Amino acid sequence: MDLLQGLLTRRSIRSYQSHEKISKEELVDLLKAAMQAPSAMNKQPWSFVVVDSPDILEKIEKLHPYAAFVKDAGTAIIVCGNRADSYEEYWKVDPLLAGQNLLLAAHGMGLGACWCGIYPDEARTQTFIKLLGLPENVIPMALIVVGIPSVPFVAPTSRYDTKKVHFNKW
Amino acid sequence: MDLLQGLLTRRSIRSYQSHEKISKEELVDLLKAAMQAPSAMNKQPWSFVVVDSPDILEKIEKLHPYAAFVKDAGTAIIVCGNRADSYEEYWKVDPLLAGQNLLLAAHGMGLGACWCGIYPDEARTQTFIKLLGLPENVIPMALIVVGIPSVPFVAPTSRYDTKKVHFNKW
Repeated sequence: MDLLQGLLTRRSIRSYQSHEKISKEELVDLLKAAMQAPSAMNKQPWSFVVVDSPDILEKIEKLHPYAAFVKDAGTAIIVCGNRADSYEEYWKVDPLLAGQNLLLAAHGMGLGACWCGIYPDEARTQTFIKLLGLPENVIPMALIVVGIPSVPFVAPTSRYDTKKVHFNKW
Repeated sequence: MDLLQGLLTRRSIRSYQSHEKISKEELVDLLKAAMQAPSAMNKQPWSFVVVDSPDILEKIEKLHPYAAFVKDAGTAIIVCGNRADSYEEYWKVDPLLAGQNLLLAAHGMGLGACWCGIYPDEARTQTFIKLLGLPENVIPMALIVVGIPSVPFVAPTSRYDTKKVHFNKW
């Protein structure tokens, strides 16, 4: 898939084939793409918790209000920020760019994916810290669900809006 | 360029041809890719300030500690979060994903680009609010420099690190 076309056609997938999930090779490719994101001073202040245990996926469905499809999808990747590795406070930025790379890589591989927000919702952040046993300084930032789509792909409508563009001054 | 290859080969470009800059058509393509990012409840809480005035680019060089090449590049795009449009606090997340899309689109188009952090550095955020005359509720989050590279492209080394991956629990 062409990079520009991929950027324009990626969309959130919320319906998955429950009898099939992504392969280990696909998982590695997703993580490689994620970790190639830029980061302040190249500190790479991120970690990834890959969940494929049906028990934990079921817990995630109960704990996250917008992830009712995660058990069907079969794989959840929690993108975390690592405060201890970060240049200044850029752990609040860099892991999100890695997450977006991962989301796009899934699209490029013909997989379905959906970004389910965690950070900066404080209660949800605490929930995932507990669920995954995250150490101090590791902040769960996004839950990315990945799997084999059960719906035919339909390209999204354009969100381009010239009212959101300003030149030289607001 | 293939999407997966693009994700793996994008790198920050800090050396630009000063006699040439991106075209209006290229700018529109970058912004279209940016605005196709996902956002919480599809609220799209972002705005973009495109700077190509040499005077303002020169000011940015003085005000930002890591953007000494922005005047040569000829174009700076300040990705902003819009608190008033946001679902909950996700203006802290969504515009960054749009910024990453823009960075990748530049790579896909053979342009050079570099992400220069603003948010969450409080002083730098205030500096750009003043420089661009941003209204209340609009937060400058990243300065993305875009231009025609003056250096031959060299693929980056892999940042894939298995120590950053955990399975089911930390």
